[in-house]
Amino acid sequence: MTATDPLPPGSTIGILGGGQLGRMLALAAARLGMKTHVYCPDALSPAFEVTPHRTVAAYDDEAALAAFAEAVDVVTYEFENVPAQTAEFIAARVPLRPGARALAVSQDRLEEKGFLSDSGVPVAPYRPVYSLDDLEAALAELGTPAVLKTTRLGYDGKGQRIVRSINEAAAAFDALDPKPLVLEAFIGFDKEISVIAAGNARGEVVSFEPSENVHRDHILKTSTVPAAISAELAAKAADAARRIVGALDYVGVMGIEFFVLPGGEDLLVNEIAPRVHNSGHWTEAVCVTDQFEQHIRAVVNWPLGDVTRTADVVMENLIGYEVDSIVELLGPGIRPHLYGKTEARPGRKMGHINRVGEQTGRK
Amino acid sequence: MTATDPLPPGSTIGILGGGQLGRMLALAAARLGMKTHVYCPDALSPAFEVTPHRTVAAYDDEAALAAFAEAVDVVTYEFENVPAQTAEFIAARVPLRPGARALAVSQDRLEEKGFLSDSGVPVAPYRPVYSLDDLEAALAELGTPAVLKTTRLGYDGKGQRIVRSINEAAAAFDALDPKPLVLEAFIGFDKEISVIAAGNARGEVVSFEPSENVHRDHILKTSTVPAAISAELAAKAADAARRIVGALDYVGVMGIEFFVLPGGEDLLVNEIAPRVHNSGHWTEAVCVTDQFEQHIRAVVNWPLGDVTRTADVVMENLIGYEVDSIVELLGPGIRPHLYGKTEARPGRKMGHINRVGEQTGRK
Repeated sequence: MTATDPLPPGSTIGILGGGQLGRMLALAAARLGMKTHVYCPDALSPAFEVTPHRTVAAYDDEAALAAFAEAVDVVTYEFENVPAQTAEFIAARVPLRPGARALAVSQDRLEEKGFLSDSGVPVAPYRPVYSLDDLEAALAELGTPAVLKTTRLGYDGKGQRIVRSINEAAAAFDALDPKPLVLEAFIGFDKEISVIAAGNARGEVVSFEPSENVHRDHILKTSTVPAAISAELAAKAADAARRIVGALDYVGVMGIEFFVLPGGEDLLVNEIAPRVHNSGHWTEAVCVTDQFEQHIRAVVNWPLGDVTRTADVVMENLIGYEVDSIVELLGPGIRPHLYGKTEARPGRKMGHINRVGEQTGRK
Repeated sequence: MTATDPLPPGSTIGILGGGQLGRMLALAAARLGMKTHVYCPDALSPAFEVTPHRTVAAYDDEAALAAFAEAVDVVTYEFENVPAQTAEFIAARVPLRPGARALAVSQDRLEEKGFLSDSGVPVAPYRPVYSLDDLEAALAELGTPAVLKTTRLGYDGKGQRIVRSINEAAAAFDALDPKPLVLEAFIGFDKEISVIAAGNARGEVVSFEPSENVHRDHILKTSTVPAAISAELAAKAADAARRIVGALDYVGVMGIEFFVLPGGEDLLVNEIAPRVHNSGHWTEAVCVTDQFEQHIRAVVNWPLGDVTRTADVVMENLIGYEVDSIVELLGPGIRPHLYGKTEARPGRKMGHINRVGEQTGRK
């Protein structure tokens, strides 16, 4: 079997991470006749409810990782913070898709920005910050306000601070760990969009239409498709996606977040995630192939699927106790998806609904 | 909790039967945040790959059934031939949906035809056949050719014989077991359609658009939507579905097969199945709610879902070794669904593809 031979139905896909993304990947894999084996340290993980094959172990448990690798044909993951040592250990034993480079790039904001710039993709001006002196110099160059971020392990607004004046530099520097940090120019933008792109080992690259995303309390609240952007801007987003996927020889689905700059003619890449993405959950309701199936197709070396969309849609996350109202939320056009989490907590993503055919007031 | 209170996410649905229908029910239940527990005598059943909760035991194993009933909040099934004793045993312990009457009616062709006639739904003329004398008398009344069928356990063309002349009566009578049999008039028809209908304990009744079905070797090969029938005929089919679901106080999804009579203005019910149905697999590709989610919604007392269709579609079964070509079958508009069966055999349903947006040449 070569690296581009398709894995046959009945193969077993190992999934690192047992949250809702791993769960939805497992459900999609089942539709392709594949088995799944979920690896996660938390025995109550939602993905454990959709497969009989599980490993409950830490990501640095080499005996457990070795047995896991032995039991599967290929490994993928639901989160970009898979430890590098874990990724290396797995990749030495069984194909890991997407590969280690995608993880390395997306785990470190400095690496990511360097990679994106090198790939000809626009990003906000930024400076690395190893010391308070660096920060003060960077603030002088980029101006205030600016955004100071950790380079690693940030998500949903965690690990970042807005610095409104040079006087706030020391407090912000002290508040964020681990170092180094990165200072980004504070970019005014009209809206946020994202593109779910995919590549496979056959060299195919496909991306879904951009969605327009609204965050609340730093957590994605809605994704609307079509986004209210020009065809030209959509083409720029697709081009950026193609460059990124191509430059990484990427295998799998990737989420790429953009800021649309004032005027609506240009955009910047905010960040990339080497995995299925919350802002792609709309695809399951209205596309021939959804992002989860697309990712599994790439991982098993099948041709990428058709991303044609058959209706307008608004995806809305159900966060915390919102899920308790699920029965009342049902109605015309509503396609629900709950994650089977045992406990609702404030800020926890419990599920989502897709409003199919939602009148967006857009062409 | 009353009989119409919705079960909350995290409840466990017991599924009798571990084939592809049980598997697809389990996948849909997972999307609603429900757990599933599959009960099947065959340890290699496809549905066992999509849940960690399983019982491998015979349908008459009362200890296993009791433990199963104890472990779940509600029980449903993927096949209409659940033994009556099994159904009674379960229903005495935990809600069984659809209920025992639906099973009794659909397990016996004579019961079924009597029920349908009593409900004001047209069926082909038929006579019960307990003896060769009965058969000869029935042939004299209904004419030849006619179709002689077992009353129980027939599917995919098994358990039936066409009787072309009275001379064939004895051979046909001897060939079919168990007795009694039923003789049906041989109805010429233009085409076969089916309707997937649903009812719930809230009194809601909803049906999907009719599909037009083509069989090959007595096994469903394709379902096309929209069917090439008049709006008036579609309304007649929906009306028949409503009568059937209403007369049974039915909870769940039901497949209803019709013959469209020459001229296209009238139809007969061929048979009903108290379960999700192969001719409803198209719904997963193009409807807001698919038949599997619809069934689970009914079973957990949630409101029924929106059956709006967003594209034309042709569902094609992959039978036997056809599944080996799955990667070659992929292409624009194709949404695959494989069942994870370990071994292809001639005549075995291994998966299906939906051709979304397929040009049917119809309005």
